[in-house]
Amino acid sequence: MSKGRLEAFSDGVIAIIITIMVLELRPPPHPTITELLRLWPVLLAYALSFLQVGVYWVNHHRLLDRATLATNGLRWANMLWLFTVSLIPFGTAWWGEHPADPIPTAIYMGTLLLPALVYPWLEAEALCNAAVEDTSGQHRIQKRKIIVSLLLYAAGMGLAFVTSALSIACAFAVTLLWVLPGGPIDRWIARTG
Amino acid sequence: MSKGRLEAFSDGVIAIIITIMVLELRPPPHPTITELLRLWPVLLAYALSFLQVGVYWVNHHRLLDRATLATNGLRWANMLWLFTVSLIPFGTAWWGEHPADPIPTAIYMGTLLLPALVYPWLEAEALCNAAVEDTSGQHRIQKRKIIVSLLLYAAGMGLAFVTSALSIACAFAVTLLWVLPGGPIDRWIARTG
Amino acid sequence: MSKGRLEAFSDGVIAIIITIMVLELRPPPHPTITELLRLWPVLLAYALSFLQVGVYWVNHHRLLDRATLATNGLRWANMLWLFTVSLIPFGTAWWGEHPADPIPTAIYMGTLLLPALVYPWLEAEALCNAAVEDTSGQHRIQKRKIIVSLLLYAAGMGLAFVTSALSIACAFAVTLLWVLPGGPIDRWIARTG
Amino acid sequence: MSKGRLEAFSDGVIAIIITIMVLELRPPPHPTITELLRLWPVLLAYALSFLQVGVYWVNHHRLLDRATLATNGLRWANMLWLFTVSLIPFGTAWWGEHPADPIPTAIYMGTLLLPALVYPWLEAEALCNAAVEDTSGQHRIQKRKIIVSLLLYAAGMGLAFVTSALSIACAFAVTLLWVLPGGPIDRWIARTG
Repeated sequence: MSKGRLEAFSDGVIAIIITIMVLELRPPPHPTITELLRLWPVLLAYALSFLQVGVYWVNHHRLLDRATLATNGLRWANMLWLFTVSLIPFGTAWWGEHPADPIPTAIYMGTLLLPALVYPWLEAEALCNAAVEDTSGQHRIQKRKIIVSLLLYAAGMGLAFVTSALSIACAFAVTLLWVLPGGPIDRWIARTG
Repeated sequence: MSKGRLEAFSDGVIAIIITIMVLELRPPPHPTITELLRLWPVLLAYALSFLQVGVYWVNHHRLLDRATLATNGLRWANMLWLFTVSLIPFGTAWWGEHPADPIPTAIYMGTLLLPALVYPWLEAEALCNAAVEDTSGQHRIQKRKIIVSLLLYAAGMGLAFVTSALSIACAFAVTLLWVLPGGPIDRWIARTG
Repeated sequence: MSKGRLEAFSDGVIAIIITIMVLELRPPPHPTITELLRLWPVLLAYALSFLQVGVYWVNHHRLLDRATLATNGLRWANMLWLFTVSLIPFGTAWWGEHPADPIPTAIYMGTLLLPALVYPWLEAEALCNAAVEDTSGQHRIQKRKIIVSLLLYAAGMGLAFVTSALSIACAFAVTLLWVLPGGPIDRWIARTG
Repeated sequence: MSKGRLEAFSDGVIAIIITIMVLELRPPPHPTITELLRLWPVLLAYALSFLQVGVYWVNHHRLLDRATLATNGLRWANMLWLFTVSLIPFGTAWWGEHPADPIPTAIYMGTLLLPALVYPWLEAEALCNAAVEDTSGQHRIQKRKIIVSLLLYAAGMGLAFVTSALSIACAFAVTLLWVLPGGPIDRWIARTG
């Protein structure tokens, strides 16, 4: 079986997940700027999750580009991975409503962490049939960045019980790690590895 | 007419169905772990249905791979099949709210069973123009697995009136049947056939 | 500009429209069979609209297969046509809640009629660059079937003020016209033309 | 990385955004024509936003057609642009509920303006690797039309505090600018530039 439909199906699911969160952004009942400003934690939560799902989509995209076949193992690892991504809107909605409470913040960080925990299995299934093994530094840097992301989300879960601002800072750090042009961060990661 | 748009449309519909169920997972009103834990039946229902729709997607994917043309019959059999799949979120939502009641459990099993009932017609329409008849053992095993799934869902419907745990066990058994690497199960099915 | 992305975008929109209606099918509050049975008008409305949107999708699919380019005119005719299709869930939801009232029934028939009213413009834009003019009987039959559908929906709108059962029968007749294998209906239409 | 999946993902997100707005169009509680007519501001808001998102989709489509590679910069500019488009349903819903109030009207215009503000960055990223620089008049006219649209939306934001009718007229003017066959408008823009 070709991997084309696997990509198309994954793109569909991720597009729905990333867009469904906008539904949480309900317009305020009264037409005043004060009421609008009260929505900022929900808007921030939505923007942050949009970025996190965006990072996951880009990495998923890159990973499947290197896969050659859609094996049974890859299909089911991908299904489990999509399931973990689909829990992010739930975490986002709960945290957006209680931005200063430790439990929703920790659960939100947990929903962001879950796809990173499944990712190594997905990667193993995608690359087990790869024609050429990628021994370039790029691949090693990618692997280290995934571990750094995982640690940042886990730290975010713990810091939720100190203050939710620190917790959210961890999620922002993950975004910066992936969005910023690789140069300095990649060199730093390559050196510390 | 080529089958490309038929696959793309089906993938879109199945991706929406599988993701729409996450909307049922409403965040609890208060930011406590007790309230979160009260959601477990809904989360379990969502995870279980994700797997069932996943199984159906993989089988649909495999089936259309073998079809050569999008005939009028195939288009309408596919439309009816997608309709039955689209009832699964309804069954999931009702069962998730009443996990121990016989009627919602039986109806949930019924919504899981419906696409399996339409599947043989879909298969006949997809393969009536197949260039080469597949006489390999793989195809025979596939057919038997579909019948076993159908019987498991039907048993699940009946067992809903005994205890819903047994009923859900049947749905889990269907998932195992398709997710586990074929080896031992396929050999057992091939032998008992 | 190629028509590939136009098809993909249209498929996405139609897939969402056809699946979004399932969200109207809310599970009943109590786990009893009586409450479930009270949902039958909504389920019927959903099933009927699924079929109508299905008919529109198949015809859209066939039409774009014959187009060669995505012109500016085709893009905007297609956008307007998608807009009219996207009103069907609204009509479906209103009629499903008031299945015996004339106004919601007539409005529902109206939302089914609208895409048929825009269709001739869409067809003109799609085929103005077609390489070969299709002078076969098949094309003539297709055109007549569209006019018959349009008249049936319009009749359904009027009959809503007599009894909604007759109105819905018109919508079912449109479905039969397109779903049934063409033979006898096509011959009858070809003769009466 | 090829740009195919970038287009498919963007099409999916835009298709969901354009269709999700229909969910705001809730059927009225009573089956009377008076109640239906009370919905006209929401229906107008939905139709207007459908057109605006349609304009953005067509321009995005044209832009990516000219890009050759999916670079890291293009992926993230596209992600940010999709995020701004995904705020349009929020603006639409708020304005639809308060069509005569200045704050919701201005915010609605603001959500329409945002993707136009990000568009130049998206364009720069998409075209930085374009094989051939487009020095034709068509490209210059396109650029000027984008600036005119941006100014119209900004004017609409300001006019919201005078009367919302003028504000909405600005959004309609943007639609006309892009939907009408280019001839007279393009010549006028080419002359005034």
